[in-house]
Amino acid sequence: MAARQFEEELNHLNSALQEMGALVAQSVHRSVLSLLEKNEDYAHEVLRDEARIDQLEIQIDDLVTSLIAREAPVARDMRFAVVAIKINTDLERMGDLAVGIVERSLAVMRHPELPTDGMITEIANLVESMVLTSLEAFVQRDAKMARTVIDSDDAVDKLRNHVAKQMIERIKSDPSVTERALDYLLIARRLERIGDHATNIAEDVIFMVKGIDVRHGAAEYA
Amino acid sequence: MAARQFEEELNHLNSALQEMGALVAQSVHRSVLSLLEKNEDYAHEVLRDEARIDQLEIQIDDLVTSLIAREAPVARDMRFAVVAIKINTDLERMGDLAVGIVERSLAVMRHPELPTDGMITEIANLVESMVLTSLEAFVQRDAKMARTVIDSDDAVDKLRNHVAKQMIERIKSDPSVTERALDYLLIARRLERIGDHATNIAEDVIFMVKGIDVRHGAAEYA
Repeated sequence: MAARQFEEELNHLNSALQEMGALVAQSVHRSVLSLLEKNEDYAHEVLRDEARIDQLEIQIDDLVTSLIAREAPVARDMRFAVVAIKINTDLERMGDLAVGIVERSLAVMRHPELPTDGMITEIANLVESMVLTSLEAFVQRDAKMARTVIDSDDAVDKLRNHVAKQMIERIKSDPSVTERALDYLLIARRLERIGDHATNIAEDVIFMVKGIDVRHGAAEYA
Repeated sequence: MAARQFEEELNHLNSALQEMGALVAQSVHRSVLSLLEKNEDYAHEVLRDEARIDQLEIQIDDLVTSLIAREAPVARDMRFAVVAIKINTDLERMGDLAVGIVERSLAVMRHPELPTDGMITEIANLVESMVLTSLEAFVQRDAKMARTVIDSDDAVDKLRNHVAKQMIERIKSDPSVTERALDYLLIARRLERIGDHATNIAEDVIFMVKGIDVRHGAAEYA
């Protein structure tokens, strides 16, 4: 295969990953808006876009597989190919979680709101920014930017714990709100899991750029 | 690279995946036993084995990367390499979920049991069998066996829904059990997610064996 054709395939793969990333980030954003603004339109857009995300997942795996099979890439390009497979999986699961949020959001919007002191908004904003930053770090091949995503993970865990405590108090003082409180708790957990996937992507970006593995404290990173 | 050396590397990768699979299946089994038998020893064994699972994840990724980089495998071998990366990720996350179950199990074992009518046992048995069958299907390259895993997914979802309903009723009739009921609900959810990962592995096995993609209903499969 000519070097130019190889470059073209890499670019094609990059574009597909960016399209998928943009679509998933949009679904996460809309799933949160559907909840916070009780907006059914956003909810239905998320449900509609799921099929396109699923298609892109299969397409990207095919692109990577044929790219590696036709031309064994070396070093940095090889790391990019392996990371592309992993990021693809993380993005698809983030899309699934956005759908999961929308399903609960459609359930809770029919009932009076439970006060969460803006904590769901806070988690949502933090997680959305993790998603966007992890994708930007991937596009820019920027390990430093990726690191900021990893550093946000603890804050999300803490916020989610606060939501859990608040909802448990709420249930204990008025058990009739149990279902709604559990819906909010589940939404907070799904946001947290979206943040976990953004963290996975950030770790993969660092591996790709620096060739070192920062998962499980396997290496100190700059 | 000589064909024999390539075969050896493939075998090495296979063994590492099998070791990881066995360890993860054991952790899932012990996490469930720690809950059902209130056994702290099992819980601590799961926590101890997490480090080894994390090590294996990194090692397997390295094996796949160097295998592909040194010899561009074709067709079936190439599919095996891509699937190895995906299965590796699924296994590591199943291990994380087993740790998550153990954390809740250590919390609930200090309190009197909440009756769940044996439903947690039922989900646990079903999910454990999905985990073992998905790994066996991978080792045997058996698409038919993989299919039985995919077929179990709905039953797990239904059982988990029953647990949720039961726990909500329990909370409403006695809000003082809220935390414990939520722990059981969370354990059921984590078991369900382990089953989801087993389903992912089964789909990857079918892709590897048949070269067709059964995710998202992308193809009818035999």
